[in-house]
Amino acid sequence: MDVYGRLTKDIEKELASVLGSGGIITEDRDVLENYSWDQAGRIWGHMPDAVVRPENTEQVSSVMKIASLNRIPVTPRGAGSGLNGGAVPLAGGIVMSLERMNSILEIDPVNRVAVVEPGVVTNDLCRAAAEKGFLYAGYPMSTETSFIGGNFATNAGGGKVVRYGSTRRHILGAEAVLPSGEVINVGGRFRKDTWGYNLLQLLIGSEGTLAIVTKLIVNLEPKPGKTVNLLACYPDIETLVDSVSKVISSGKKIISCEFMDKKLVQYTTEYLGCRLPEQERSEGYLIIQIEADNEEQLEESYEVVGKICMSCGAFEVFVAESRTDSAAMWNVRQNGLEGMRAKDPYACSSGDLMVPLSSVPEMLKRISSAGSKWGLEMGIIAHIGDGNIHPIPIKPEGMSPERWAVYSEEFFEELIKEAISLGGVGSGEHGVGHVKQHIIIQSKSAAELEVLKGIKHSFDPKNILNPGKMFFPLET
Amino acid sequence: MDVYGRLTKDIEKELASVLGSGGIITEDRDVLENYSWDQAGRIWGHMPDAVVRPENTEQVSSVMKIASLNRIPVTPRGAGSGLNGGAVPLAGGIVMSLERMNSILEIDPVNRVAVVEPGVVTNDLCRAAAEKGFLYAGYPMSTETSFIGGNFATNAGGGKVVRYGSTRRHILGAEAVLPSGEVINVGGRFRKDTWGYNLLQLLIGSEGTLAIVTKLIVNLEPKPGKTVNLLACYPDIETLVDSVSKVISSGKKIISCEFMDKKLVQYTTEYLGCRLPEQERSEGYLIIQIEADNEEQLEESYEVVGKICMSCGAFEVFVAESRTDSAAMWNVRQNGLEGMRAKDPYACSSGDLMVPLSSVPEMLKRISSAGSKWGLEMGIIAHIGDGNIHPIPIKPEGMSPERWAVYSEEFFEELIKEAISLGGVGSGEHGVGHVKQHIIIQSKSAAELEVLKGIKHSFDPKNILNPGKMFFPLET
Repeated sequence: MDVYGRLTKDIEKELASVLGSGGIITEDRDVLENYSWDQAGRIWGHMPDAVVRPENTEQVSSVMKIASLNRIPVTPRGAGSGLNGGAVPLAGGIVMSLERMNSILEIDPVNRVAVVEPGVVTNDLCRAAAEKGFLYAGYPMSTETSFIGGNFATNAGGGKVVRYGSTRRHILGAEAVLPSGEVINVGGRFRKDTWGYNLLQLLIGSEGTLAIVTKLIVNLEPKPGKTVNLLACYPDIETLVDSVSKVISSGKKIISCEFMDKKLVQYTTEYLGCRLPEQERSEGYLIIQIEADNEEQLEESYEVVGKICMSCGAFEVFVAESRTDSAAMWNVRQNGLEGMRAKDPYACSSGDLMVPLSSVPEMLKRISSAGSKWGLEMGIIAHIGDGNIHPIPIKPEGMSPERWAVYSEEFFEELIKEAISLGGVGSGEHGVGHVKQHIIIQSKSAAELEVLKGIKHSFDPKNILNPGKMFFPLET
Repeated sequence: MDVYGRLTKDIEKELASVLGSGGIITEDRDVLENYSWDQAGRIWGHMPDAVVRPENTEQVSSVMKIASLNRIPVTPRGAGSGLNGGAVPLAGGIVMSLERMNSILEIDPVNRVAVVEPGVVTNDLCRAAAEKGFLYAGYPMSTETSFIGGNFATNAGGGKVVRYGSTRRHILGAEAVLPSGEVINVGGRFRKDTWGYNLLQLLIGSEGTLAIVTKLIVNLEPKPGKTVNLLACYPDIETLVDSVSKVISSGKKIISCEFMDKKLVQYTTEYLGCRLPEQERSEGYLIIQIEADNEEQLEESYEVVGKICMSCGAFEVFVAESRTDSAAMWNVRQNGLEGMRAKDPYACSSGDLMVPLSSVPEMLKRISSAGSKWGLEMGIIAHIGDGNIHPIPIKPEGMSPERWAVYSEEFFEELIKEAISLGGVGSGEHGVGHVKQHIIIQSKSAAELEVLKGIKHSFDPKNILNPGKMFFPLET
């Protein structure tokens, strides 16, 4: 007997009547295929039976009521830019794409919040906030494509976490639809409360396994002051890493502290057709973004930070003199994955090790020696100021893509165990999905897993919402 | 039949053997009485059958195993400075006081964290951090007495939330003992992760109903720059409130923005034997603390903020020229409750309304008109920059203390409904305990209550941990 109910023609009709024109896709295999995978790669995908594209909360609620009644799996989906299969409909059934719920409903200057739908592209919110003189400080590297709803689901990080924190810090409230179709509201237009269990914080980072968010109240920061970008070039990784904690604790306003290694820079600059300074000699680079209230302070800040880098062993620190210079260095950083993929389309993007800052030097050593042991060529980028490291290995020549999907994840499994042994965890910002599922299960005690299952059950007793993800293997 | 098991002599002996000398109190009624109530007042108290005072995680775990096996209620307790009965052993059984687990285990400068036991007094942590050149930014007004564990349990707020956020933002990791006695570790020495459901954030503010924290990893901030305190005096509340959102969004680094009304200042200065400037004419005061990197910036900042206050209608803004001046104004603010209690020992401290900043003017009007309707004299203090308002009414002459306990909470019930209708909630920082229980239950939908019960059950299937609190009435 099947665990889940089948999506019959009658149920499809019922869904169509709720959703209206263009709201449901069931026949067109090409379209369905587009919703079957995310940036983990096609190999981790699974076909849905239908894609629904609700336009409002009522429609989301109605779909969930129908799905719940018939025990049809529903997998919520944002932009599909996730890296661990979080948006993949593992058990088939319905993909619920939030793409049509993409309105910025309000910018509220007095309470310093925006109210948005989950399908808003991160960058669109950033722009709308900037127009009103505010900053939306969420800044995943996929800011041009990712949706706010996906940022919420994965507690997205990115390049400004050192200063502003991850998405968790930027969400103040949410409207959410439970698997039963009931609508709840959590949090609000305020920045503290202690009025019962904090369901909002529990939902953030739960990868769409507990509820579907249909409206978000997000924090806006005052517009930052002036910023400057530094590019520090190092002869070896040890001296580079030594700079990081000193830069972070310099007392200057460090917005970003990002790392790129030689190989990543090589492939990415080849891909982009550009060069970074000192590319021959540099084993690694730091991009450091600093903020200050005015030019004078800014100058003083970057001199202090530059001196720290030099005294740790950087052989050059460049100050981006213009927007063009800044854009050039950030362009390499933001296209790191694309650069590696230009070298090898199978370059694996799911590595997302998270360790305490003090463990970064040791973690980088272990990544390097594991790479040799596994015979892998890789580039490395890192939100190094957070202790968050993304090794991007490429497929060894001659290995089949199927074998590589397994091999690369076994490699990351070893690295995640190393990260955990150093006081870290297996993901800083990419999440778990099903790609990292068996590793996260191994990393938790039986007692904790019992609690986690209980929480899932309390939201989703029929296990219809994004089944097979995180701690919960697919029922068979 | 009783819901819970009885604390027999045999169980007491078992507990004593686990806890060692001084670890358990069962006979001395005077001592037990001290642990029967918190700052909600004796009237909300309930006697425990025993008090245990574990010295380490193993002892906490052992006690929980024994309690779980015999279904004995256990109520964890910090300093007992809570205001809604969170630490009261409503079902009798065991009070677990964390007072002997009071070590600061480590200050880790590279990762900018401290590792502490839950019984550390907030101020002791602040001092230890300052000695190493850091700031612990948690700052409940009870900083001299409250424990970090209690701050954790109630997501304590205080006077610096405008700048630093509430306790939720300052806790990075925890070791916690489940009701079963199993030990789990959540979070770590890092500032972002997306490695499964965020149990840490769920535990923060759960008032000891889900687990007992035995170790905390807390965030340390870089030492702040120079600060200055302003005291702005207003002829009426409207103009004062008008200043607040303008001050908050001035772009200057506002650390605190605190409000005191005329009556509160009158009674508190009488109690302290001091005066604030312009006390005759002022209907309300703002204390504004501002930070800047250096003297010049600081001067520029306070001039900007001062001008905002004056242009909104303040008739005077004083800059504290010395530490003594600063201490004098903060002394009035921090002793606001004591001042009201000196006027009337029954002054009720549990009011903790939380509204969006934009709703503060309307909320203050409604508090004032409700006060008239209910025939109550009150003083008001507020973390007004957060939208968090504490009305402190005093008992009408001739009313019995028993009647007053009910009457005052009925008054707050009305105000909480007003706060909710204005987009707020019933507590910003005091929590729920049992005093606010029926109000929080009323404020949640059946669907949300089901989820909340499920969460409680997943941690505490036997309902032994702090029973009768928050959403969960005492079983009978």
